Amino acid sequence: MAWIADAGLAAAVSNAGGLGIIAAGNASPERVAGEVRKAKAQTDKPFGVNIMLMSPYAAEVAELVVAEGVEVVTTGAGSPAKYMGAWTEAGIKVIPVVASTGHAKLVQRSGATAVIAEGGESGGHVGELTTMALVPQVVDAVDVPVLAAGGIGDGRGLAAALMLGAVGVQLGTRFLVAKECGVHQNYKDRVLAANDIDTVVTGKRRGHPARSLKTPFTRRYLEKENDLAISDAELDALALGAGALRRAAVDGDIETGCFMAGQIAGLIKKEQTVQEIIEGLMSEAEGLLREASEWLS
Amino acid sequence: MAWIADAGLAAAVSNAGGLGIIAAGNASPERVAGEVRKAKAQTDKPFGVNIMLMSPYAAEVAELVVAEGVEVVTTGAGSPAKYMGAWTEAGIKVIPVVASTGHAKLVQRSGATAVIAEGGESGGHVGELTTMALVPQVVDAVDVPVLAAGGIGDGRGLAAALMLGAVGVQLGTRFLVAKECGVHQNYKDRVLAANDIDTVVTGKRRGHPARSLKTPFTRRYLEKENDLAISDAELDALALGAGALRRAAVDGDIETGCFMAGQIAGLIKKEQTVQEIIEGLMSEAEGLLREASEWLS
Repeated sequence: MAWIADAGLAAAVSNAGGLGIIAAGNASPERVAGEVRKAKAQTDKPFGVNIMLMSPYAAEVAELVVAEGVEVVTTGAGSPAKYMGAWTEAGIKVIPVVASTGHAKLVQRSGATAVIAEGGESGGHVGELTTMALVPQVVDAVDVPVLAAGGIGDGRGLAAALMLGAVGVQLGTRFLVAKECGVHQNYKDRVLAANDIDTVVTGKRRGHPARSLKTPFTRRYLEKENDLAISDAELDALALGAGALRRAAVDGDIETGCFMAGQIAGLIKKEQTVQEIIEGLMSEAEGLLREASEWLS
Repeated sequence: MAWIADAGLAAAVSNAGGLGIIAAGNASPERVAGEVRKAKAQTDKPFGVNIMLMSPYAAEVAELVVAEGVEVVTTGAGSPAKYMGAWTEAGIKVIPVVASTGHAKLVQRSGATAVIAEGGESGGHVGELTTMALVPQVVDAVDVPVLAAGGIGDGRGLAAALMLGAVGVQLGTRFLVAKECGVHQNYKDRVLAANDIDTVVTGKRRGHPARSLKTPFTRRYLEKENDLAISDAELDALALGAGALRRAAVDGDIETGCFMAGQIAGLIKKEQTVQEIIEGLMSEAEGLLREASEWLS
């Protein structure tokens, strides 16, 4: 959620009873520190920072969260092992995103507080395993609490994740269309208009697969990715790091932007406030679980 | 489940309260008719036949199920539209496997009784969408009942599927290790030993992606699939139709067989009777739903 999950969205989620997360992405430490301070000004509830471990600034952001007294860190796109000592010593709750049982066991050994088991139906960087297959296997593999992510867009997904053994869920795509999400309106409109088959994974050839909406950008990238006459360097020049995420989120550039979103985009049909989204999810999930207990009795 | 879901397994599932399915795969009409008659001798409960629409015998098997008075037909690997009229006229309940909302709406228009929304974490032929993302979107798209398949291996998966809006589930991989499943012991042992990351999808280049356990066969196939110097004809000679499924299921040939299985294989740790599997799933799912209603009250 680089360029998307900023202080405003994170604070709104925390104020509504969730745990808001600021996505550091590839942002500079100064920029991340600025977002952390803005979030502190907008909420007195805990919030977190997601550190994208492939970022050139990962090490500096890892220090910054300690200095700023951030309460929760989530990590993506790699192993956070080398930072875990400093974070846990500072009392930070560390919740790595994992895509396999092996990765979950590894971060548990390094001192993770919990893990987010994220299926490959999610938006952004993806693994091979799906939420349905991954979550119960991670629950069986580790002793720390497991949150589920990937493919969860409403109360049905939340209730399903709880049945799989998760203690909670992480949502990305659904919050893209929150009123408090400052992403360009074109991005929101694309998510709202998406159907079930409107996402695609690019970047497999370079070992960094990521899911986004089908756009001119993904079409061009895939053509070049599948063309072995195109060098890896040429492919990288086109790639996500090269401003395509900013062009989607900030400029709403349908032609050259990369609009990351999960397969659940097809389910998401309205822009709502964060509070409406969270309350809707909770009441729908509760209703489904109560209804189920009625069939059983 | 070609070469796997035979009369013995299907009758055992129906006798235990499920709906057993005989997989026609690429088998000849004579062979399928033989299995149907064997199943009738082994159960007085309804059972079904799965017709793999890419089979060279699909049209003949489509007639045979009418002639034999089979009560339920499921279909995979394509659109059953051209057979739907004859089947529904004969009173057969038709439940196509679908991998997108578009496909679900299409088969509903053709007269499907229900649909099986199958996520790409399943074994065998796979689509792009995952169970978690697909099932609620299909539930919203059609008026017929939706069953969930893909990534379901225990009561957690069953309860999760019900929360997503499914009225029931289809299991493949879990029944591979049923005592009544006549597959070679090497196949069962490979499923029981699998971990979460032990499956892989082959066949994307030829437009027929299928998931199976990582074996020397899949390694060789993937090498050739990724090598553009290898012709499509050469690739097809290696492919699934060419006996690799039989070599896995019947001969247990670890070297040249193709051992289809879903991502949930990593969860499956014991061989049990069909009755034990079904009762275990039901009681686990019921327990989870009751427990959830207790937190809520």
